[in-house]
Amino acid sequence: MKRTYTTPLDIENGCIELTHGSGGLAMAQLIDEMFVAAFDNDLLRQGNDSACFEVPTGYKIVTSVDAHVVSPLFFPGGDIGSLSVHGTINDVATSGAQPLYLTAGFILEEGLPLKALHRVATSMGLAARNAGVPIISGDTKVVEKGKGDGIFIATTGIGIAPRQMDISGSRARPGDAVLINGTLGDHGVTIMSLRNDLHFQTTLRSDSASLHTLVAGIIDVTSDVHVLRDPTRGGIASTLNEIAEQSQVGIKLQETAIPLNPQVKGACELLGLDPLYVANEGKMLVIVPNDSAERVLQAMLNHPLGRQSALIGEVVDDDRCMVTMQTALGGERIVQRIAGEQLPRIC
Amino acid sequence: MKRTYTTPLDIENGCIELTHGSGGLAMAQLIDEMFVAAFDNDLLRQGNDSACFEVPTGYKIVTSVDAHVVSPLFFPGGDIGSLSVHGTINDVATSGAQPLYLTAGFILEEGLPLKALHRVATSMGLAARNAGVPIISGDTKVVEKGKGDGIFIATTGIGIAPRQMDISGSRARPGDAVLINGTLGDHGVTIMSLRNDLHFQTTLRSDSASLHTLVAGIIDVTSDVHVLRDPTRGGIASTLNEIAEQSQVGIKLQETAIPLNPQVKGACELLGLDPLYVANEGKMLVIVPNDSAERVLQAMLNHPLGRQSALIGEVVDDDRCMVTMQTALGGERIVQRIAGEQLPRIC
Repeated sequence: MKRTYTTPLDIENGCIELTHGSGGLAMAQLIDEMFVAAFDNDLLRQGNDSACFEVPTGYKIVTSVDAHVVSPLFFPGGDIGSLSVHGTINDVATSGAQPLYLTAGFILEEGLPLKALHRVATSMGLAARNAGVPIISGDTKVVEKGKGDGIFIATTGIGIAPRQMDISGSRARPGDAVLINGTLGDHGVTIMSLRNDLHFQTTLRSDSASLHTLVAGIIDVTSDVHVLRDPTRGGIASTLNEIAEQSQVGIKLQETAIPLNPQVKGACELLGLDPLYVANEGKMLVIVPNDSAERVLQAMLNHPLGRQSALIGEVVDDDRCMVTMQTALGGERIVQRIAGEQLPRIC
Repeated sequence: MKRTYTTPLDIENGCIELTHGSGGLAMAQLIDEMFVAAFDNDLLRQGNDSACFEVPTGYKIVTSVDAHVVSPLFFPGGDIGSLSVHGTINDVATSGAQPLYLTAGFILEEGLPLKALHRVATSMGLAARNAGVPIISGDTKVVEKGKGDGIFIATTGIGIAPRQMDISGSRARPGDAVLINGTLGDHGVTIMSLRNDLHFQTTLRSDSASLHTLVAGIIDVTSDVHVLRDPTRGGIASTLNEIAEQSQVGIKLQETAIPLNPQVKGACELLGLDPLYVANEGKMLVIVPNDSAERVLQAMLNHPLGRQSALIGEVVDDDRCMVTMQTALGGERIVQRIAGEQLPRIC
């Protein structure tokens, strides 16, 4: 049902006002002309408080939620809108599931230029369409100026996986191979250099991307994937430590095998950062039995988002559940779990 | 898997710090000792980035998202935690679905006392348990002091409904009866009087509650429910105008039939508010064919949350899609759609 309003939303010069969150006509217009226009799909257009869809027999439902508060809102390689789509799709894909739908809750700050919101909504709609995962339910709230920070977005992803699929952080086994689909730290270093106003000569970009088709390609070549996890906040160091604990195993990395963008390497040296701890938004850690590692690596290399995939380590027997790394110089170091990260609001 | 930390979270005196959102040990501890402890359930305890569950054959999935920014965080009758559970369960129930699971994304402000967060998480866990709808996936982000406002919570609900169930804002038909499960405006007036520091002699409380069992009771007595919708922001005036437009019908209310708490009536007169426009958080508008109205009303009256249920109006033929009200004095007034509401952050 298409409603018409006296004057269209002034996207060029308008700003978010408190009435945009109050349930009246102003909110209905914002939803129609901003969100429904950008996310355009049948289920959302129905305009009910909830959206319905069917699930084929023999499948289970997989769900995951992500709140996004990245600052700044726009960065080379993406923005909070596309990031919120990619991040949640990737979390659903870590179960080996096919993501089907997204829901999005917006918390907007009074005074936010509608132009900025329009840019975010458009990018979000595009990311969702490119991924084939429509945004079917949304909610908008507005908080007073100074009680938020432009735009926060909480997205929930819903997907389906065959009932017998069992991919989990607790399934890493000694002997398994650890793979990644490309270079580390691109997202975190991009955000950090923007915040520190560092200008690198080259074009550093976030790796923000939806990885569900890469995951589907892996599942195509082996039915026995043990662990999938996207190393976002805290980098691969934090994610691998979590997996080691959940599975009660050790993990041994090979420094020379880890793909690193030379610009990220340079920036990390400049900023005193360890790329193992820097956030990624388009990377997937893949743990599979050693005998399928070659086949899985090949499938990853064949995907556009896996051109720099590499086998970076192995799972070992270790009841202290430690993550260690064979360094380029031949020594071994412990890759510890850290308390926090230097950088808030990376995603 | 139970992890242990050097010192437990200091819930009594501690505060949220930026490291609680950074993906390291501090975040893991907050999640374990605050959220997993409060929301305690198997799916959440698995500690994966996504949660899986099965759907019986013949059912469709229903989903809905809500962002919660209510201010103040605590109010008579509830808090942002219980409200976020009730609001989302009710949105799922508007499809006639049985809510099964919730996901919750938290955006916390640096400096928030852990004690306040603990109170909210505990109340949220209790509301979810009482409703039988566990929170199975969560995410926590932290923003700098002054970039948020204590706690924002985005919840997504997932439920199931028989495939043939078709309850929607577009299904109101001339002749249908309009019912509500009790008094109007209790939530909005409670929040408003807190903000304006008005002290009423009596105990005004939010009506915040989960209505899915009330809905189940209605569906038990009739398979032909046309519309269910919870009149939150903008009150029943906004919700009925939306339904009238979606269904291309008119709606005629009877003022004398509308249940009103005398304290709410008094407060509305004092504050110059029309209770039709004030937010509810535990009310459901029910539209059914006239011949089942008596049976449905009886089922609602039999439910603990429907003791003051009433038939308040009827759906009429009107291609201007107007909502009108027969007033207590015998006249008729138009119940217009308003641009916004006086009160931001009511939910």
